[in-house]
Amino acid sequence: MQDKTQKQITLDHGSGGSASSELIESLFLEYLTDPALHRMEDAAVLNIQGKKLAFSTDSFVVDPIFFPGGSIGELAINGTINDLAMQGARPAALSLGLIIEEGFGLDDLERIIRDIADTCRKAEVPVVTGDTKVVPRGKADRIFINTSGIGIIDEAADISSSRIREGDAVLLSGTVADHGITILTSREGLEFQGELQSDTCALHKMVQSILGKLIQSSSVHALHALRDPTRGGLATTLSELARSSGTCMEIFEAEIPIAAPVRAACELMGLDPLYIANEGKFIAIAEEQHAESIIEVMRSFPEGHNCSIIGKVTSNYPGKVVVHTSSGGSRFAEPLTGEPLPRIC
Amino acid sequence: MQDKTQKQITLDHGSGGSASSELIESLFLEYLTDPALHRMEDAAVLNIQGKKLAFSTDSFVVDPIFFPGGSIGELAINGTINDLAMQGARPAALSLGLIIEEGFGLDDLERIIRDIADTCRKAEVPVVTGDTKVVPRGKADRIFINTSGIGIIDEAADISSSRIREGDAVLLSGTVADHGITILTSREGLEFQGELQSDTCALHKMVQSILGKLIQSSSVHALHALRDPTRGGLATTLSELARSSGTCMEIFEAEIPIAAPVRAACELMGLDPLYIANEGKFIAIAEEQHAESIIEVMRSFPEGHNCSIIGKVTSNYPGKVVVHTSSGGSRFAEPLTGEPLPRIC
Repeated sequence: MQDKTQKQITLDHGSGGSASSELIESLFLEYLTDPALHRMEDAAVLNIQGKKLAFSTDSFVVDPIFFPGGSIGELAINGTINDLAMQGARPAALSLGLIIEEGFGLDDLERIIRDIADTCRKAEVPVVTGDTKVVPRGKADRIFINTSGIGIIDEAADISSSRIREGDAVLLSGTVADHGITILTSREGLEFQGELQSDTCALHKMVQSILGKLIQSSSVHALHALRDPTRGGLATTLSELARSSGTCMEIFEAEIPIAAPVRAACELMGLDPLYIANEGKFIAIAEEQHAESIIEVMRSFPEGHNCSIIGKVTSNYPGKVVVHTSSGGSRFAEPLTGEPLPRIC
Repeated sequence: MQDKTQKQITLDHGSGGSASSELIESLFLEYLTDPALHRMEDAAVLNIQGKKLAFSTDSFVVDPIFFPGGSIGELAINGTINDLAMQGARPAALSLGLIIEEGFGLDDLERIIRDIADTCRKAEVPVVTGDTKVVPRGKADRIFINTSGIGIIDEAADISSSRIREGDAVLLSGTVADHGITILTSREGLEFQGELQSDTCALHKMVQSILGKLIQSSSVHALHALRDPTRGGLATTLSELARSSGTCMEIFEAEIPIAAPVRAACELMGLDPLYIANEGKFIAIAEEQHAESIIEVMRSFPEGHNCSIIGKVTSNYPGKVVVHTSSGGSRFAEPLTGEPLPRIC
């Protein structure tokens, strides 16, 4: 029996914003003391018998499970691949854990498994192990998916938010807010004439291309940090990077690519696109003189077509994100508080 | 909207018995084609840059979340450690994915995280990466936990159900049915004077000791297969081993250790202890002349104190399990059909 007087978990705790950070810091990191966990990156970096491996996990509870541009299955595969890619790792193997509600349609399950298989094939990363649990009707909402993944990190790569330095350029691989706005409008049954679509995609090939080019020119050290702005969006992710590196992220609103229908939907609903989740974009922080070279690689991929240099790292307000607005002003962008969009991934 | 006419997932599909096997074979293996997945062992065996690694995943949805002898937290850590151990791997790192229902008590969460930390410390295996999702009230039942794990397999070990041979001995590390009967009676509020207790524990140290002893005597090849009889119990697990190796497992009822209160509870409820889940036991199948040597190691661990040689591998009924009863008769033990005990782990 639950004690009604005790403090409770709220949706905020799962937002990826400041309540999530507090829960992680006050509870999980208090008891779980491994240094790899305490690095708080998207994936742990392990040294296993002399090999550098990345290891990551993510659970997906998105509602609806099918949406324009993707499904919970695609999201689950791409999401964990991207967490590995953000450590510069080449994803090698994935696990698949399903929790299914009794009564869930076998046709829907088949559609999800087919999506998973197609996404794996496209990404060239296999599911190698799995587990299925079924809970009675009403004890879960249709289907939840966990994926974990192992990736191999090139000896030369050294990607970590601790390497961010003043003077670095801040790059973004494409438009923001596509995924979150698509889920929200699709869940609420809002019509935007089919223009909105999730950006879910696997980013490891783009990252590997960037690393390959930099390694070839003996400048892989120039790439300092990678992060995909999922829950909490671009502003929250930049805020985490500023905080963990003790630097200031200054970004220029005019340089942040946003698709016209996404911008329109955000304006209509009064949402700030900088706080809306993405599932196929990443931030790269690199030495300024190598920024154009990285942008060239991004642009050569369809999913990096709208990439942009959105700002720079300074020492003006350590731990803060400053947004220079299109109208010439500027404001701080704090990490997300509250949970505007539950079950976005 | 779910189509009411389509076929649906039932609790049987999550039982670990024959409906689970059918779902895996007809759907998952149909679309997901990686050979490591198709081996259908407790963990995948990967060759990553010349190193043999085991990789496994498991989701835990047990109800109740706290029970005599353990909690969902302990179960989640020990369960994945054991899946790795069953491939002869030394567990190196775990991931932790939480799905929490809005309103779940922070004190209960803290108790679970503390259990996880204690269990990790005792097992000397760290959680290195994690993820937390929160779903609205009523969309999940309190808390579900996924753990995945990476283990390192000794070059010398070659553990696989495909190596089972006629003449092998079948060993069991201790009493059966403790976990399942504890969960069931605890959930139903049945009183057994506190005698029942889950057997949840990590088995990797016992397995490593067995491997160490066999390696020392240059007879590691003698250990053919390891498997922990969780969902579906001893009979279902032996049945899977018989089926995948094309051999016959003949076991002697009188040799199967069952604790007196568990036997009494099973008799009272009309349940067959051979089909009830275990969370701290394993089956070892090894060349007959090395069986006593393995038993000696098992017996030196408190959790292996009640170990026993329970039978032998023959060619009498390929793919079948034959139980020789205490009264001198014999019967086939088929894999579990139906789901007598949902949410047992």
